[in-house]
Order: sequence, then C-alpha cells, then structure tokens
Amino acid sequence: MAELGTLVLLRHGQSTWNAENLFTGWVDVPLSEQGRAEARKGGELLAEQRVLPDVVHTSLLRRAISTANIALDVADRHWIDVRRDWRLNERHYGALQGKNKKEIRDEFGEEQFMLWRRSYDVPPPPIERGTEYSQDTDPRYAADAPLTECLKDVVARLLPYWESAIVPDLRAGKTVLVAAHGNSLRALVKHLDGITDEAIAGLNIPTGIPLRYDLTEDLKPVTAGGTYLDPAAAAEAAAAVANQGR
Amino acid sequence: MAELGTLVLLRHGQSTWNAENLFTGWVDVPLSEQGRAEARKGGELLAEQRVLPDVVHTSLLRRAISTANIALDVADRHWIDVRRDWRLNERHYGALQGKNKKEIRDEFGEEQFMLWRRSYDVPPPPIERGTEYSQDTDPRYAADAPLTECLKDVVARLLPYWESAIVPDLRAGKTVLVAAHGNSLRALVKHLDGITDEAIAGLNIPTGIPLRYDLTEDLKPVTAGGTYLDPAAAAEAAAAVANQGR
Repeated sequence: MAELGTLVLLRHGQSTWNAENLFTGWVDVPLSEQGRAEARKGGELLAEQRVLPDVVHTSLLRRAISTANIALDVADRHWIDVRRDWRLNERHYGALQGKNKKEIRDEFGEEQFMLWRRSYDVPPPPIERGTEYSQDTDPRYAADAPLTECLKDVVARLLPYWESAIVPDLRAGKTVLVAAHGNSLRALVKHLDGITDEAIAGLNIPTGIPLRYDLTEDLKPVTAGGTYLDPAAAAEAAAAVANQGR
Repeated sequence: MAELGTLVLLRHGQSTWNAENLFTGWVDVPLSEQGRAEARKGGELLAEQRVLPDVVHTSLLRRAISTANIALDVADRHWIDVRRDWRLNERHYGALQGKNKKEIRDEFGEEQFMLWRRSYDVPPPPIERGTEYSQDTDPRYAADAPLTECLKDVVARLLPYWESAIVPDLRAGKTVLVAAHGNSLRALVKHLDGITDEAIAGLNIPTGIPLRYDLTEDLKPVTAGGTYLDPAAAAEAAAAVANQGR
C-alpha cells in the first residue's frame, strides 16, 4: 500500500470583522492587512520547511480562499489543484452574525456567551431568513445554508467531505493543504485526535501557522495534536486566541 | 439539449517583465501593480454586466492565476470551481526567454524578430536544458515542458484541453472563465473563429478586458470575434499591444 500523504491545516488570519470584534460565521468578510501578512508568513513557513502542497482544499469564504492564495503564491505552489466546499466553512453563528462580541457578552452574560462560543452542542438562536447577514439566498449554497450551527453540527457536515474528498488525496500520497476556519479545523482535529466533546472546548488553533499531521494507514496521527511549523509562535498565539472577545 | 453556457476569455494584465520589455513565455513572473489594477477592472466589468463565472480555467503561471483570483474576488465569485492546466500556458519562447525584446530586434533585425513573434509555424531556437529560464526541471511540468514553441504548437497542445475540459463545462450550461495569455487565447480564438494561419498574425487580444463568446450547439461563435465587455477600451488597447517591442 502506498504511504499516506501529509495533511497540513492552515487557519486564516485576521479578518476585518475579527479586527472589529464581530461574530462572523458565514458572513464573507475579507482579510485585514494583518491577516494578509499572516498568510504570507504561513507561506514562508511552508517554503522554508519544504512542506509543499500538491492540492489545496478551502471553504467557500474569501478569508480562507485568500489565505490559501497568498500562502501558496509565497511558497511557489500557486499552480496546484484546488478544491472548494461549503463543508469547510466556519461554524454558522446564527442570529449572532454581525453582532459585536462584547455587546453580546454584556447583554446575555458571561455564562450564555461562553455556552454559544464554546459548548459542543448548544447553537446560537437561528438567524432570520432573508436578513442582511443570512446566507439562505446566497447562490453558492442553494439549499445547503444552515440558519445556525453548534460545533457538533460542524463535525457532522465536515466529516462526509473529509472522507470523500480529503482522505482520497491523502491515500494518493499527496501533501494536502486545508485552508479553513477556527471551528471547521477544530472539528477536524477533534476527529483526528479523538478529543472528547468536553475537552474540545479548551482547544484553540492559532491563525496563520501551518499545522502538520503525519497519519498512519488507519488515519491516526503519528504525533497527537500534530506539529506546528512554528511551535513557539503557535503556543503564544493560542493563548491570545483564548482571550478573544474579552 | 441544454443551452450552451457562456465562454469568457481574460488575458492577464501587465507583468513585471512586460514592464521591462523582456520575452517571458513560461518564466513565472508576477503581475506588476498595473497588472493587478487591470485584473480588478476586469472583475468590475464581470460584476457590472452580470457575467458571473461558475468555473475558472487557468494556466499554471502566476500572472494568469493572480488575474483570475483578483478579478473573481472583485466580482464576488472567488468561491467557484477552479481548474488549472499547463495547456493554457503562454507560448514557450525558447532561447528568447529572459531576453530584452529591443536587443533581440537590434541583434537579429526586424524581419527575424517579427518571424519569431508573429509567424504561425517558426519557433524561436530551443532553450538550453537546465538553464536559468528553462522549465525542464520544474516540478509542475515533469516531462511536458517544451523547449520552444510556435503558435501552431500552442494550438496543437491547447485543443485537447479545450475539448476534454472546457467544452464539457460549456455543455453543462456553465459560464466558463478562461484566464490565460496572449498566445494561448489567440490559439483558442483562431480555432473558434476559424481564422487562417496567415490572418492570425494580425490578431491581438487586449489585456484585462473580458471577451465574451456565446456559442451555438456546434461550438461556433454567435458573433464572430466575440464581444468585449468594454469595446471602446478593447479597441484602444489592441492598438497599443500591436506596438509592443517597438
């Protein structure tokens, strides 16, 4: 049997709404200048450590797509095959999309705020159809757009894509870059590392730092949690992400 | 039978080597700032005229890939399917790659210069393998990279991709964007419009202005030569391209 390829996860960097401390979810905001710099840094790490993707999978959101485009251009891998799917999108944040995180925390209190942000199976209230920040009429989703999601929902819609699209590329021996989002990547890491529904709340994936997984034939990580291409920066960034919204 | 989709051709804008008046061919140089602005303008035209691609086909060269990425982002179609193939690459300019156009004209004379630039079947001398501007060891091409090409060679390697990859998308009713190069797009237009080997010498496709072709069931243009989304700018630009290298 051929050796399994290498999986590389890359969470997009700062978007304009991250900078403004707004819940984003499926709202398709661009990277900020800082986010573009993070993507370039991610590409430099790929190039320096010769982790050279053969194919990239992205969500349908421009902050992940731009991150992939920028990082791959820096790494001289702009020409590889591209796959995109809504199943890699960020968690849909329901009625919270477009709302200020601090205002929501002040209005609903710390406990409810953290439940919506970090619980495994409690989604925010659904967004109203046809409103400014809903996606139910977006041509890219047709009937697929949810009205809200918890992390459990993300796991459920992500895994069919993992099995049907990403695993075949890995079985073909390819180096596979997945450029996506905080929660779609947490969902994938939960699956790969067998993290419990409770423990996943404490896991943050830093932005802009490629996370490499070498996998066994039965798709288990050789090293639990994978290996960041810049471990020191990853440790520092994970701490900062945990404080988002404070 | 389903109605045929719409074909949209987009030639990349100015690259750093266009700006320096160097033969480029398969050398993978980036867009200049002017070239990036041209791509944005192309995207604005797509959005304004509601010519919204469902899939994009690009070469493996970053000036075409970046043009597609920028234009599609501006048109809010960054999320569509992507296909890339070396068969959409610019003509390989052989031993002229990396050379200054004016110096080549001064050294070899106007007649030879125009023969290499505009004849249908006279390729420049082949590039030496393993040199700075050759592609024979580039991982993206493996054994496919030529050492030189004339336009006839481009037609021969382009048409199998047209038939096997682009036509099926059109038959599926999709709006198909092809982001490519002066000579790969001339080769395609020659085929579509049935232009003779002699007449193709006089055809220049302007940069950054989407060229729309509606096609009949037997893949003939409804309007010969297609329709530029900005006809006045196209006429002006075509005249400027004809003077390149002077």
